[in-house]
Amino acid sequence: MEEQVSNKQVLAAGLIAGNPKQTDMYLQTSTITLQLPPEASNAVLVKNLYLSCDPYMRGTKTTFGTRLFYSFSPHSPIIGYGVCEVLDSKHPNFKKGDLVWGVTQWEEYSIITTMTDSLFEIEHTDVSLSYYTGLLGMPGMTAYAGFYEVGVPKKGDYVFISSAFGAVGQLVGQLAKLMGCYVVGSAGSKDKVEILKNKFGFDGAFNYKEEKDLNATLKRYFPKGIDIYFDNVGGDMFEAALLNMRRRGRIAVAGMISQYDLDEPQGIKNLVNIIYKQIKIEAFTVYDYYHLYPKFLDTVLPYIREGKITYVEDIAEGLENGPAALEAMFTGRSAGKQVVLVARA
Amino acid sequence: MEEQVSNKQVLAAGLIAGNPKQTDMYLQTSTITLQLPPEASNAVLVKNLYLSCDPYMRGTKTTFGTRLFYSFSPHSPIIGYGVCEVLDSKHPNFKKGDLVWGVTQWEEYSIITTMTDSLFEIEHTDVSLSYYTGLLGMPGMTAYAGFYEVGVPKKGDYVFISSAFGAVGQLVGQLAKLMGCYVVGSAGSKDKVEILKNKFGFDGAFNYKEEKDLNATLKRYFPKGIDIYFDNVGGDMFEAALLNMRRRGRIAVAGMISQYDLDEPQGIKNLVNIIYKQIKIEAFTVYDYYHLYPKFLDTVLPYIREGKITYVEDIAEGLENGPAALEAMFTGRSAGKQVVLVARA
Repeated sequence: MEEQVSNKQVLAAGLIAGNPKQTDMYLQTSTITLQLPPEASNAVLVKNLYLSCDPYMRGTKTTFGTRLFYSFSPHSPIIGYGVCEVLDSKHPNFKKGDLVWGVTQWEEYSIITTMTDSLFEIEHTDVSLSYYTGLLGMPGMTAYAGFYEVGVPKKGDYVFISSAFGAVGQLVGQLAKLMGCYVVGSAGSKDKVEILKNKFGFDGAFNYKEEKDLNATLKRYFPKGIDIYFDNVGGDMFEAALLNMRRRGRIAVAGMISQYDLDEPQGIKNLVNIIYKQIKIEAFTVYDYYHLYPKFLDTVLPYIREGKITYVEDIAEGLENGPAALEAMFTGRSAGKQVVLVARA
Repeated sequence: MEEQVSNKQVLAAGLIAGNPKQTDMYLQTSTITLQLPPEASNAVLVKNLYLSCDPYMRGTKTTFGTRLFYSFSPHSPIIGYGVCEVLDSKHPNFKKGDLVWGVTQWEEYSIITTMTDSLFEIEHTDVSLSYYTGLLGMPGMTAYAGFYEVGVPKKGDYVFISSAFGAVGQLVGQLAKLMGCYVVGSAGSKDKVEILKNKFGFDGAFNYKEEKDLNATLKRYFPKGIDIYFDNVGGDMFEAALLNMRRRGRIAVAGMISQYDLDEPQGIKNLVNIIYKQIKIEAFTVYDYYHLYPKFLDTVLPYIREGKITYVEDIAEGLENGPAALEAMFTGRSAGKQVVLVARA
């Protein structure tokens, strides 16, 4: 019999109320054999290096309560995106030693069986590996697809981004600036607002918590109106944006996080404005755009190497700090894209 | 001095409350010289043959009240689409004897000066000239642009059309059937519902006034959901449609007539559903698509000649019956696309 090693894991305790808290998760150490059994066809055994904390992980409300990630079952490891090293493979596309990113589990070692389609081989290692949880991973691809494919930007467009300091928003803003757009973002703290302006070169940024009248705020930042609104929050910000869109403006909806916890969703009163200005509102998911991933890398990698695109990460060290990191991301306390470092490559 | 002839006119009395009524208009007879003065460069003098009654003519609420058509000024002839014969022209694109359709005024003879850009020459006269107020005019082009360009249909799509018996809806439904879609429409009377099913070949149709729970109604007609919703009404129907859209469904918004008279617009509570299904909502205006008019004619004219597309009109005879016809269109009493016959060609 093969030698077994210990495998630290973060498990989901049960259904959650609202955003996940540390107490919705618990640590456990099990054991694992670092070799796939012969019958594990198409499976991949990986060592998890970085795990990603993302807003979608809170899932949506069901009749029974809110789940932590959509494929969650209680007392099993949390599922999420990560960067991994392949230790063993029975899958034709992967071999020992490969670095991959995709859907894995919150533990030191994982056997990936059903989600191997979602694994991308990492070919470029001259940039930080952790970027494949964010800038070069699912959030980055979300930014790229939402901005270019849904937003259909052109030079000089007026672009507004909510949650602009988030894992997605950071890149949307920088792509928009590189295209020659005027870019304003909202975030939830003074520090984040400063980084948006000083590090990412946004033309403007504001702390939405300090604004009493979001319509007036947007009018101040966009006296000529908004061409593209990249929406991550919905609700009051969406209402204000609807009042400030320009003719044939586009609203790319990546999420409406303000709405998920409400017992009854907020009625959107300004929707009729889309008629007067011929507005497009399009909700999208990155899953429909992964075929563009090679094109995305061709676009973004050179910018990273030239220092024209940068990224702010908040890396928690150690899987045992994962639950706190996930809670921090949901409460807006993370000082950048929240990552958990499990092991160095 | 040239001989003058009498020119019967329909004038707007003032601002209106809600939908226009006969009493918001009045008749007057003035005189006109049937020759353009030498200084009228780029002007066209026309004899109006058919005038069109269209929903957009009620305009939108202003601080002062609702206007009858956007460029209305009190005690001037109502502005609207029509089919006309050119009697005199100082415009390089038009000559005496031409038949045109476009924006004219509600009177027997009009001098068109500023809106000549909106005039289209009628080249095909083997079909009913009145069709250029509807099927082959602005409403037809609205149907074509909304269905093909905004709706992006494919064979087998499930298509729902509100105001399906209207000047636009009639064509949307027939284009969708010709493409191999499953088509259901809503209308406001039993007679209209019968025509949708029996004359236009809709797979289903219902009288929305008899439905208590529109969500249940749509679930009944679309057990697998809706791919394209062609929206003319907004409000409760829009809410119900949002609950029944399929993944990546498209809502083409031509109008939201249920919303224009409300003091405060109805809050749309189901908007968050666009996230779960990646829905696109796009409001559009025909003015952005007139460059496709030749392509539109190439598509629709053969279908008309082959009897594969038909059209139901309600033609009021005589300009003096125009105000009653316009009121009938707004109250849903018209038995087809409402047209006013002013003079035969």
